[in-house]
Amino acid sequence: MDKQVIKERIAALREKMGKAGLAAVVVPQSDPHLSEYLAAHWQVRRWFSGFTGSAGDLVVTPDGAYLWTDSRYFLQAGEQLSGTGIELMKDGLASTPSIEAFLAEHLAKGSKVGVDGMLFSVPKMESLRKYLGKYGISVVDDFEPAEGLWNDRPALPDSKIFVHDVKYAGVSASDKIAAILENIVKEGADATLISALDEIAWTLNIRCNDVKHTPVATAYLYLGNGGNVLLIDPAKLTDQTIAYLKEQGVATAPYDSIKTFLAAVPAEHVLINPALTSATVRNILGDKAYHVAIHPAAWFKAAKNDVQLDGVRNAMTRDGVALVKAFMEIEKRVATGIHTTEMDVAEILRRHRSASPLFFDESFGTIAGYGPHGAIMHYEADEHSNSTLEAHGLLLVDGGVQYLDGTTDITRTIALGTPTDQEKLDFTLVMKGHIALGTAIFPDDTRGAQLDALARQFLWKHGMSYLHGTGHGVGHFLGVHEGPQSIRLNYVDTILRPGMITSNEPGVYRTGVHGIRCENLVLTQPKFETEFGKFLCFETLTMFPFDNSLMETSILSEEEIEWYNHYQATVRERLLPHLTDEAEKAWLINKTQPISK
Amino acid sequence: MDKQVIKERIAALREKMGKAGLAAVVVPQSDPHLSEYLAAHWQVRRWFSGFTGSAGDLVVTPDGAYLWTDSRYFLQAGEQLSGTGIELMKDGLASTPSIEAFLAEHLAKGSKVGVDGMLFSVPKMESLRKYLGKYGISVVDDFEPAEGLWNDRPALPDSKIFVHDVKYAGVSASDKIAAILENIVKEGADATLISALDEIAWTLNIRCNDVKHTPVATAYLYLGNGGNVLLIDPAKLTDQTIAYLKEQGVATAPYDSIKTFLAAVPAEHVLINPALTSATVRNILGDKAYHVAIHPAAWFKAAKNDVQLDGVRNAMTRDGVALVKAFMEIEKRVATGIHTTEMDVAEILRRHRSASPLFFDESFGTIAGYGPHGAIMHYEADEHSNSTLEAHGLLLVDGGVQYLDGTTDITRTIALGTPTDQEKLDFTLVMKGHIALGTAIFPDDTRGAQLDALARQFLWKHGMSYLHGTGHGVGHFLGVHEGPQSIRLNYVDTILRPGMITSNEPGVYRTGVHGIRCENLVLTQPKFETEFGKFLCFETLTMFPFDNSLMETSILSEEEIEWYNHYQATVRERLLPHLTDEAEKAWLINKTQPISK
Repeated sequence: MDKQVIKERIAALREKMGKAGLAAVVVPQSDPHLSEYLAAHWQVRRWFSGFTGSAGDLVVTPDGAYLWTDSRYFLQAGEQLSGTGIELMKDGLASTPSIEAFLAEHLAKGSKVGVDGMLFSVPKMESLRKYLGKYGISVVDDFEPAEGLWNDRPALPDSKIFVHDVKYAGVSASDKIAAILENIVKEGADATLISALDEIAWTLNIRCNDVKHTPVATAYLYLGNGGNVLLIDPAKLTDQTIAYLKEQGVATAPYDSIKTFLAAVPAEHVLINPALTSATVRNILGDKAYHVAIHPAAWFKAAKNDVQLDGVRNAMTRDGVALVKAFMEIEKRVATGIHTTEMDVAEILRRHRSASPLFFDESFGTIAGYGPHGAIMHYEADEHSNSTLEAHGLLLVDGGVQYLDGTTDITRTIALGTPTDQEKLDFTLVMKGHIALGTAIFPDDTRGAQLDALARQFLWKHGMSYLHGTGHGVGHFLGVHEGPQSIRLNYVDTILRPGMITSNEPGVYRTGVHGIRCENLVLTQPKFETEFGKFLCFETLTMFPFDNSLMETSILSEEEIEWYNHYQATVRERLLPHLTDEAEKAWLINKTQPISK
Repeated sequence: MDKQVIKERIAALREKMGKAGLAAVVVPQSDPHLSEYLAAHWQVRRWFSGFTGSAGDLVVTPDGAYLWTDSRYFLQAGEQLSGTGIELMKDGLASTPSIEAFLAEHLAKGSKVGVDGMLFSVPKMESLRKYLGKYGISVVDDFEPAEGLWNDRPALPDSKIFVHDVKYAGVSASDKIAAILENIVKEGADATLISALDEIAWTLNIRCNDVKHTPVATAYLYLGNGGNVLLIDPAKLTDQTIAYLKEQGVATAPYDSIKTFLAAVPAEHVLINPALTSATVRNILGDKAYHVAIHPAAWFKAAKNDVQLDGVRNAMTRDGVALVKAFMEIEKRVATGIHTTEMDVAEILRRHRSASPLFFDESFGTIAGYGPHGAIMHYEADEHSNSTLEAHGLLLVDGGVQYLDGTTDITRTIALGTPTDQEKLDFTLVMKGHIALGTAIFPDDTRGAQLDALARQFLWKHGMSYLHGTGHGVGHFLGVHEGPQSIRLNYVDTILRPGMITSNEPGVYRTGVHGIRCENLVLTQPKFETEFGKFLCFETLTMFPFDNSLMETSILSEEEIEWYNHYQATVRERLLPHLTDEAEKAWLINKTQPISK
């Protein structure tokens, strides 16, 4: 990106701001659905700043421009912003003010800050208004920064939606709608507006190719008093999908009619999740808006049904088989001295995985970090950083797939040569935590944050830790990150319920040395009921061997070794029948040999 | 208590209510300082209801009377309320409405509910008003139920205060006041009002005998703009204590002048903790009230200084020596067939402990539960329930002391005969949790709720659990329960800091069979600093052996056995030099023999 172009865009924005009487503009990384992954149309912050990272908000004032982003992107943002006149604000450092605090300090009383209210969630907008209000600064919420400036802006995505067959989804859209409506009536509402794209896709059993990695369609879904309506660009529909939606009791209306549509709905109480609804949309509802912390569709979506779980188990076997071929190829290339880079690793995984007719997309960009790169969270190799693998050190590979019958997400860390004692110790401490969490049994009212320390305890004893969560929710042929559940240091008031899928991914990252993460997906299941109540446990879904050569058996208990050997044997049993090549069979059998003290 | 007398008291209250135009009255178990233990003067709920439990709120309407209490007291309340016309409302059951919900359902719109605002914390009053307000019911907050009815009501406590020597407290009152004032100025306030009695006692290094178990004085403390003033009954002062307070920069005013005093203070922002301040007192402050979740005095008080910690360690040794004599006496009596009851056990402990010149009081009523009684939480034997010990089964003993140099709180569960396999399994699972928590190492920003599962994990795997917290904060010659820290299932947003003392007390309770609890006090200490940050650990303070005969070594890891044997050896090393009697020495040596697989 030419730095001069960025300077000109910022200058044009300043002129527009000036005409609108604004003292500052905030351009967040967001869309009207508060999505994690954005369609090209919504990459407004990227267009203005030239910074391509997935997190970061831009603030422009008459004499300055500032980009807030977190530690994952300090290096990248520093390079991309250099020469643009945009200053990097390192989010998370004690010395960096919040955007609110920065504005309050730099703007005069009586100033106005412009934002596009479609890109701010209700609580984010409230917090901005409240904070700035104390300093006599107001917020103008209908300022669209890119309008009139971004001439070649990509259109809204127009891929066709398609039906996610009930043979994968397990429950029809009409049954899901009925369940949601029953729930919202119990809450005292008579309608609901769903803005979150994955909740809409789940409810209607529709999918689409609007954004990479998450197969959702850009739309709003209104259910209840006045009829069920999907607000979606007509270009995304076909006669077949229109007929399908009609069958399920859902009419359609144009996506861009959302404001007039909502202004006219006959409902009295429209249930929304404010954290996943834009401030502008919520304001149209006015007093009709009925706030809940978690939408019933999100609760239903989180607890997978038996059809979905059968699909996920099949997807895990399929993914494991593809990974056997991929890891075998990688190891062979390294062993025989064929030039292989981190980007090659990602390509090899994709090639083997995408051979399946049920492959739809990767569920996120594969992270293949060799040596010190393994210690960089969310590392994605590019032409510039791309390391060549050698026959020593650790390779961390984190990737996943959107299969039609389930979403996968797995991390394995392997030794490319004979591992050092340090590598083995670090790896085994991570595995001890992985096993402790994976084998936990817990009462049926337990929140993820209560279990998080089980995965960290062994690292802590050696003065190590990791800053990311231990487990995130995972969707079914949907978001690889989904709520409401999680297993993490921070408190989240959501109990783990049967049918929920989360990751189990402790890790440890030695800057400049190596990174280790061991990730399986696990399913919350009922365990038993006693005089003390109901208890739950985890079933491990992911099927691929861990690297025996990294296991320091001297620090493992008999129970840990037993779990490990049982897991490796299960992997072998599940994958072997799907392998035909003798070399692949031999590779898998070798990788799943039991370990002992 | 004559049931007829209770009926007459309720009838008199109804007449008084009627005259005041009230549709209901709520009488909570509380005092103006929101204390855990109440002076006789404040036992209003007990006087009206005849129920003597330490938790429970009474509601009276023109045609009904209801007492809400929790599961600890269902049996006792059932007996004490029977025949009084007061209905037991079992708190915590899904079928039992909250007091607010009950009132909203039973009272007509426009009704008034009377309460004494001095006995409600600010958030409790706000929640009551807000809930009832939705139903058009208002709260009258200056209705004193006992006034004019309770003729022989005990006066406010008038014991003399005394100075807690700085050789025990470690820091002078004037230095503590300076630190608090510095802190509140940083917060933006210019004064503070402390209502919590333990925070006042800590700040001024004063103690008193107003209530059993907690050596606090009934008072308010105002610090800051306008001068430092202790509002206290003049009868509680002497020339010496007045002079002492003056030396420390504190004037005195009558306790009952609190309302006029506060109305006249020159301060602009008076910092208070609303959860530990009565609604009436807060209302006098009006816009001047500046709310914080935890008072700086509570933070300072929680982190013990080195002088206090030396004292606590001495107190633990002293307590351990007394318990050697006590448990030896109990065992001998049981072995030789001398009639011994649960109440005898409590008396034996008290006799040996109170022999020390530093003994001030027990820190709570000793719980001695034999067999099935061990499974009753907060059991305190009385003439009626008092069991006789036999040479089999488990005896749970939980007790503690207020020594001048520290507060103790210890639970031991011992086998009175040859333990069964079930007793050994249950005990050892509890001990595994106790050891896991006691040996934890954790980052310096960890909250207690994150560690709680470490103590529960082994019980959970066997389908068992316990409903109480794993660890409560403990004061220094002050409350045996103190905040702000805790280790429990529920989320509490307070990190564990060096110098904090908490209990480590997992347990398991089989109704009708036995109860097991293993409790030591532990001190949060710095452990080490690595490239991953600072880490903390626990130092075990309590010094008394566990019962080897209950340890099922086959389910213990080598590390657990090592910790256990090291603890027992440390106890022996610390206590032995203080024993002179050969039989006592032999008893201790025998009890602290190492165990092995």
